[in-house]
Amino acid sequence: MYRSARNLQLFSAALSNPRAAQRSSSLRNICPAPGLLHSPHSPLRMASSESFRIERDTFGELRVPSDKYYGAQTVRSTMNFKIGGASERMPIQVIKAFGILKRAAAEVNKDYGLDTKIADAVIQAADEVAAGKLDDHFPLVVWQTGSGTQTNMNVNEVISNRAIEILGGKLVYMMIFFNLFIYVNSFSSNDTFPTAMHIAAAKEVHEVLLPGLQTLHDALAAKAEQFKDIIKIGRTHTQDAVPLSLGQEFGGYVQQVKYSIERVKAAMPRVYELAAGGTAVGTGLNTRIGFAEKVADKVAALTGLPFITAANKFEALAAHDALVELSGALNTVSVSMMKIANDIRFLGSGPRSGLGELILPENEPGSSIMPGKVNPTQCEAMTMVAAQVMGNHVAVTVGGSNGHFELNVFKPMIIKNVLNSARLLGDASVSFTNNCVSGIEANTERINKLMNESLMLVTALNPHIGYDKAATIAKTAHKEGWTLKATAVKLGFLTEEQFEQWVRPQDMLGPK
Amino acid sequence: MYRSARNLQLFSAALSNPRAAQRSSSLRNICPAPGLLHSPHSPLRMASSESFRIERDTFGELRVPSDKYYGAQTVRSTMNFKIGGASERMPIQVIKAFGILKRAAAEVNKDYGLDTKIADAVIQAADEVAAGKLDDHFPLVVWQTGSGTQTNMNVNEVISNRAIEILGGKLVYMMIFFNLFIYVNSFSSNDTFPTAMHIAAAKEVHEVLLPGLQTLHDALAAKAEQFKDIIKIGRTHTQDAVPLSLGQEFGGYVQQVKYSIERVKAAMPRVYELAAGGTAVGTGLNTRIGFAEKVADKVAALTGLPFITAANKFEALAAHDALVELSGALNTVSVSMMKIANDIRFLGSGPRSGLGELILPENEPGSSIMPGKVNPTQCEAMTMVAAQVMGNHVAVTVGGSNGHFELNVFKPMIIKNVLNSARLLGDASVSFTNNCVSGIEANTERINKLMNESLMLVTALNPHIGYDKAATIAKTAHKEGWTLKATAVKLGFLTEEQFEQWVRPQDMLGPK
Amino acid sequence: MYRSARNLQLFSAALSNPRAAQRSSSLRNICPAPGLLHSPHSPLRMASSESFRIERDTFGELRVPSDKYYGAQTVRSTMNFKIGGASERMPIQVIKAFGILKRAAAEVNKDYGLDTKIADAVIQAADEVAAGKLDDHFPLVVWQTGSGTQTNMNVNEVISNRAIEILGGKLVYMMIFFNLFIYVNSFSSNDTFPTAMHIAAAKEVHEVLLPGLQTLHDALAAKAEQFKDIIKIGRTHTQDAVPLSLGQEFGGYVQQVKYSIERVKAAMPRVYELAAGGTAVGTGLNTRIGFAEKVADKVAALTGLPFITAANKFEALAAHDALVELSGALNTVSVSMMKIANDIRFLGSGPRSGLGELILPENEPGSSIMPGKVNPTQCEAMTMVAAQVMGNHVAVTVGGSNGHFELNVFKPMIIKNVLNSARLLGDASVSFTNNCVSGIEANTERINKLMNESLMLVTALNPHIGYDKAATIAKTAHKEGWTLKATAVKLGFLTEEQFEQWVRPQDMLGPK
Amino acid sequence: MYRSARNLQLFSAALSNPRAAQRSSSLRNICPAPGLLHSPHSPLRMASSESFRIERDTFGELRVPSDKYYGAQTVRSTMNFKIGGASERMPIQVIKAFGILKRAAAEVNKDYGLDTKIADAVIQAADEVAAGKLDDHFPLVVWQTGSGTQTNMNVNEVISNRAIEILGGKLVYMMIFFNLFIYVNSFSSNDTFPTAMHIAAAKEVHEVLLPGLQTLHDALAAKAEQFKDIIKIGRTHTQDAVPLSLGQEFGGYVQQVKYSIERVKAAMPRVYELAAGGTAVGTGLNTRIGFAEKVADKVAALTGLPFITAANKFEALAAHDALVELSGALNTVSVSMMKIANDIRFLGSGPRSGLGELILPENEPGSSIMPGKVNPTQCEAMTMVAAQVMGNHVAVTVGGSNGHFELNVFKPMIIKNVLNSARLLGDASVSFTNNCVSGIEANTERINKLMNESLMLVTALNPHIGYDKAATIAKTAHKEGWTLKATAVKLGFLTEEQFEQWVRPQDMLGPK
Repeated sequence: MYRSARNLQLFSAALSNPRAAQRSSSLRNICPAPGLLHSPHSPLRMASSESFRIERDTFGELRVPSDKYYGAQTVRSTMNFKIGGASERMPIQVIKAFGILKRAAAEVNKDYGLDTKIADAVIQAADEVAAGKLDDHFPLVVWQTGSGTQTNMNVNEVISNRAIEILGGKLVYMMIFFNLFIYVNSFSSNDTFPTAMHIAAAKEVHEVLLPGLQTLHDALAAKAEQFKDIIKIGRTHTQDAVPLSLGQEFGGYVQQVKYSIERVKAAMPRVYELAAGGTAVGTGLNTRIGFAEKVADKVAALTGLPFITAANKFEALAAHDALVELSGALNTVSVSMMKIANDIRFLGSGPRSGLGELILPENEPGSSIMPGKVNPTQCEAMTMVAAQVMGNHVAVTVGGSNGHFELNVFKPMIIKNVLNSARLLGDASVSFTNNCVSGIEANTERINKLMNESLMLVTALNPHIGYDKAATIAKTAHKEGWTLKATAVKLGFLTEEQFEQWVRPQDMLGPK
Repeated sequence: MYRSARNLQLFSAALSNPRAAQRSSSLRNICPAPGLLHSPHSPLRMASSESFRIERDTFGELRVPSDKYYGAQTVRSTMNFKIGGASERMPIQVIKAFGILKRAAAEVNKDYGLDTKIADAVIQAADEVAAGKLDDHFPLVVWQTGSGTQTNMNVNEVISNRAIEILGGKLVYMMIFFNLFIYVNSFSSNDTFPTAMHIAAAKEVHEVLLPGLQTLHDALAAKAEQFKDIIKIGRTHTQDAVPLSLGQEFGGYVQQVKYSIERVKAAMPRVYELAAGGTAVGTGLNTRIGFAEKVADKVAALTGLPFITAANKFEALAAHDALVELSGALNTVSVSMMKIANDIRFLGSGPRSGLGELILPENEPGSSIMPGKVNPTQCEAMTMVAAQVMGNHVAVTVGGSNGHFELNVFKPMIIKNVLNSARLLGDASVSFTNNCVSGIEANTERINKLMNESLMLVTALNPHIGYDKAATIAKTAHKEGWTLKATAVKLGFLTEEQFEQWVRPQDMLGPK
Repeated sequence: MYRSARNLQLFSAALSNPRAAQRSSSLRNICPAPGLLHSPHSPLRMASSESFRIERDTFGELRVPSDKYYGAQTVRSTMNFKIGGASERMPIQVIKAFGILKRAAAEVNKDYGLDTKIADAVIQAADEVAAGKLDDHFPLVVWQTGSGTQTNMNVNEVISNRAIEILGGKLVYMMIFFNLFIYVNSFSSNDTFPTAMHIAAAKEVHEVLLPGLQTLHDALAAKAEQFKDIIKIGRTHTQDAVPLSLGQEFGGYVQQVKYSIERVKAAMPRVYELAAGGTAVGTGLNTRIGFAEKVADKVAALTGLPFITAANKFEALAAHDALVELSGALNTVSVSMMKIANDIRFLGSGPRSGLGELILPENEPGSSIMPGKVNPTQCEAMTMVAAQVMGNHVAVTVGGSNGHFELNVFKPMIIKNVLNSARLLGDASVSFTNNCVSGIEANTERINKLMNESLMLVTALNPHIGYDKAATIAKTAHKEGWTLKATAVKLGFLTEEQFEQWVRPQDMLGPK
Repeated sequence: MYRSARNLQLFSAALSNPRAAQRSSSLRNICPAPGLLHSPHSPLRMASSESFRIERDTFGELRVPSDKYYGAQTVRSTMNFKIGGASERMPIQVIKAFGILKRAAAEVNKDYGLDTKIADAVIQAADEVAAGKLDDHFPLVVWQTGSGTQTNMNVNEVISNRAIEILGGKLVYMMIFFNLFIYVNSFSSNDTFPTAMHIAAAKEVHEVLLPGLQTLHDALAAKAEQFKDIIKIGRTHTQDAVPLSLGQEFGGYVQQVKYSIERVKAAMPRVYELAAGGTAVGTGLNTRIGFAEKVADKVAALTGLPFITAANKFEALAAHDALVELSGALNTVSVSMMKIANDIRFLGSGPRSGLGELILPENEPGSSIMPGKVNPTQCEAMTMVAAQVMGNHVAVTVGGSNGHFELNVFKPMIIKNVLNSARLLGDASVSFTNNCVSGIEANTERINKLMNESLMLVTALNPHIGYDKAATIAKTAHKEGWTLKATAVKLGFLTEEQFEQWVRPQDMLGPK
């Protein structure tokens, strides 16, 4: 029989009703002998990666690497889900979020009467997980149970074993004891995994994405200010159009990034809602009244983010609309990024045969013999990221739409893609800023040349010489390849001085 | 020479500076002789669809149907863009939005000094467009210029000719006069088309989508209330799980629709921003200071929606992030709809071999010989709509990401998809509500049967008879196909009365 | 009781076993009295659109427009599915495909013994549907039953009533008789609708898409030939690169379109498979052995396309992988189109401030005062189409992935999108060809100027003057803004003659 | 000056014209002194990860880890592209494909006269890369230059340094010598990277995807055979329908997987085309005639796959339609997988409250107290993979559509997603097969029960007792919840024996 399951059962009861549990002889019976708990030599630290310990689950014996805190359920999952390899592991942000959640739950359970010594060991172990100190102990891939149960178990095994170790026990006894701790922090993967998803997503947004976007915003704003007096030809339909300032053009990008930040923030309220406390189907069965709220409060305190308990736990387990919504915001950000990076690479195209209005910083050796050929590699990285985010968004959308009844089982895939999008956009924003935007210079010579050669400025002559003569100038200039000024003077319609007085691009930059 | 272009030029100036324009002999010269303007017989109404009038543009003569208000530019477009046929026409909501915008601009220009008589005729004509009275006069397809210029011209032609008609002129003189009115309302397609896009999108959201979602929300909420005391088996991983009430299950759907509404609303602030006044590249060249704000105010007054002028006109022309964002919200709504409709069809599956917990209303003849086979056709329509919206969203995303420089030229495609998504979701919500949700009944007999047969309830016995005996009951029941109660009594672990006292699903619906 | 359902039942049996049916008194009983069948005056033609006839289904009375061939089931659907309006109607290609299928089935049933008179009337009516003569009689939208049943019923009603009319009966008797004909051609919507989907898709591919792509291919190939001796600067990373001929550049486009055609054709074998004969769940229950093959043969003969019966009818009903695959091919075509149209608009950008290497034909009035500003409107239409096709593909993918058990119920949505993509790509290819590609001219003056200004050609000097001197020339030229030739001569490294002898772009166009 | 660039230049020339190069004093000058080449102690193996060597590029000094074969360009890239971290590294399959390509090119250059000793060292080094022995030396992420140039340089650095080491040189001299080898194998990233993309994709398809699909196909086919006599209720619209055999149902899945394999194979011909030899823009500048063909032949020989040189190198560099097409095939496969895995989890739902027709193998501990609750975790992994592949496909589509002029610069992103999709689908197919499909058993008791309870079988009574009585039986059975047989007998319409004689599901599985 799967003996430890009974312990789990008892322990779960103990957590809900600690005083009653203390009276339970069954619970006392599963505690390790005092001597074992104080064994001075932890075998863990001495294990080589080639040695194994034998654990057992309902399916039989399993070989667990001696130097790993995880146990049978984790090993079982690695055997059953050989999909994609190491690069497809559950994002470490999810693991760290679990560390935060488990700590929060341990604290709440401590308030409810959980033995302080045990609780503190769990808290310490959870903190180590949250701090990334135990990253090597989480080998599972994304492509596992759609509820993320196996990763939840992986976390439970690691925290349990580490907590036992802290308490002086040995890993070798894990087979007997680990279930004591499995459910220390929560009662179902079904509410803990989505909680970890939201914590991980919110943290990634706040720690990587928003700072990255802000960095980009500020750099673009600085450029918009720097370029505010540089007047250039506008382009619509990729064709020459009336002028604007380069600062105005960059101002459009600034606005896009400003709104990118607003969009992401607008999606966050529903991401701050935590499923914890919903347990298996959303009812909160086996939790105490108030548990959900307390856990959310603790998580908020631990992260500094305004997490609250989900208004409706059924929705929080069965759907991931909040992450689909966030992914939609990231998708919109990617659209903005694609536009900005595309513009910049085209405006910087050249050195001789492109538009050539911008000089992009050179960051790596280009063509050694050909000076001036600076490949817009940062734009390329950014636009590749944008395309990836659009794709990730479709994956999230498909996964989000396919929940059934009380549980959506595309959870690991959804959070993987959301985190990937947030991270890539945040990182790429910083890289793009530092290695491209901040170093962009205007090629004023080129900009002025195009400006002066432009035929669009002829409209400024209408009030002075009439439409007919203005059109004649434009046509002649186009046909002959001359500038407007030269043509106007040659045709005898006005003097050079008059042209310069009447055709003033700087007067064409706004309403009057 | 394209003579009327000069008139346009002059008229544009006139609108910016009406007093100066009145002194312009050129402008006077292009006005129709008084007699013509009062011609009592409009040829338009008498024209058969087989008769044509000849108009001319820079490329030559064109045959324009005599009974149509549109002119040469519209006909030219129909010749150049034979793509997709009638079902691919520019959405009529865009046309109507143009009617609103043109009226607003005429009013603003009237304030600026535009001749009242002309302005009032334009206003009347624009109102007719907005009211859908002239729908037959807009034959252009979406697949045209990416700026929507040709549709803007179509609108200008129709409003101009209709205004001329109102003023007593004849369509036959359109060649001479229509350009007088082309730019009555705005100075570039580049800002008017995106303005019409936002007006159309906001109106569709408010008139179709949000009311539709609210209808669905209310019906689901009523069902959640109606079903609040019906306790049923939960399902996670599509497997039996602990119980919840059918009201709780529907409560999850209610929350999804509630948040759908919030999500759409959260995207609207940026949709309320209007590009009008940005003119060709966003600078507002050729407009007066304050024009943009006044137009937005008028549009807000005409629609009752909180439109404002765009904070940054460069962004408003070059990008359509606001509509990508809205589309993202619609995508999230579609994800919710897919989940809800999928659940309902599965819960209603049967009549004998499905889950059978819900009885869906029968709306059309199913299998005549097989009673009870009610195909969930409304669920099917809704899920098809959801899939379409997901696809539309990708189209919008791709279009939104491919703007270049001062102008995004995927405008008609973007608005077509956004409007389609909003309309389909709104309409489908109402159809789904009226023909499915409102008529759903719980099959309580079936629900109770499944509930009673469930093995998950065994956990309630743990505190009373211990884990071992409880597990034995479950295993035996599973193996023998018995109910828990029967098994428990047969095994002699407890009495029927004890079972009923201890195993109470109604106590498992929340935390304690 | 739903009396006509019984007739249907009997008639179905009759079709499977015509001889037995002739002996059935029940069948005889439902035949109209001879007199009625020869009523000389059809009320249909005289009905105004305001008049109605009353029909009845199991849900009660319905008002059917007197001038319409459709009946109760169609009207019922219009009442239950008010989603999207007229622009969302079932694509007429599906209706026409049904015409073909119904005719084929009638012919096969005739071979099996169906009364010739009835069969011939059905054949005539089906032909009229296939020929588009009865388009106004198909008002249903896509957003209906996911099996397309209601459209199948719409077709059955129209063909039945028209056949009755042909036989001399009156529409007024439709209530009694129409079910006689409902299942003339097939026994379930579940196999007929997917059959019509494949017929419609294959025809659209052959009649619109492939000819359109071929037209574009040939025009691009002609341009590649025309431009084969024009040597131009290459561009990688949007930066200047080594030269190629404009013909080579267009040759890349030619290859893309050539492969577009191959890709579409490679997807067709599985589209040629027809589900007809699978009936309700794929078993072919109620059909005769050989029926499926005969129907496929007839459809092949009627269309001239190599249709065959599906290898596995279960797959053919439950999945639409074949159309997802075709949609994937269209998606790849759209990717090619986006690349080609994007390149052409950028290469044609200008007139002064763009790349300016191509002169695109002017098709509509642009800026009247600014000659040379030719908006690449055909490129814009094409790229919008491309974005739409990408979106459509996601809708098809989502729909295709969500089939359940024996039936995929996203059928109308899937075929709508596939047909839309095929039509748009085909039409846009022709429009793009006729209004853009065919008229493209090379701006050789500009091309040569850029070529001569290019610094990339300096590499050709290495073998003659060494790397160091060559690099010095390039650097100096870049810094001073000079041409390579001028710089080389000024630096005294070589003579003008030597430069022209050694730097020969035409020698850089291929391997040696 | 970037001195080594000159060496590169010379060396490139040497490769094209080895005999001439041997006469070049410059080339001789950059060769290491013989003594250095035979230095017996390689510092590489002794370096700790904390020690660095200093290299230099045009931007200054760089610290390169002493134990790494890569050099300055790789380090530069790690500094400039801090995007995504280790999990975002260039897929190792691309690195290995480069190993194959570089070896092939070295062999071809050897045929052209490249020094045998150098060539053999390069070949050995390239083999080590292809064999995965040097995986730790490729730290670059996907989000770099869009041409993949930096990874090409990474490969060149590693192969060069390793080859120098093989030849007896020291890493410490790398600054001087590595460029000797940079372009040993090819002349531009622009043709080598897409070549590596195609090699990697084709190998992944053949080594992982197709074997995985075949495994799944065979297991499903075995189940279809095993289940061929089990007759079950069909389900359309998720509602009860006429019967089919479980073998037929699985036969539909078999067909889907069979066609999945065909679809992938149908996309391969264009993937087998290699860009190698196109060099910078597709012209093949700097290669010899025949080089492209020879390289493709060598790659074909090395891989056993039918690679050929690309028909059009311009297309092969500027577009990645072939990979978009392959991704489209993978997308279709994912659609099939979603359908199959969804069906299996629903058919296996239960144990008491689901459909319960299939018994899925239990692979991991589920609910310890609740026997029979076997979560369909393999289905969940598979459907998550399917969603991911759909998303990846959109990323590939967006990237593929955004190429400009002579080069698509979304290369690393495109190949990452294609490889990810192929790997995930292949791995998941094997996991799904071994841990789910192969162990599926039919719950015949449940299947028979549902079959016997079904009302759909009533249609079989029509020919015997007439439609009216049959319908009465069905209605009564539905209303009372009785079986058809019991109802029929109770109503006195027939005997039990007659029922069993007339209602034979096994006669309803095909046409007659």
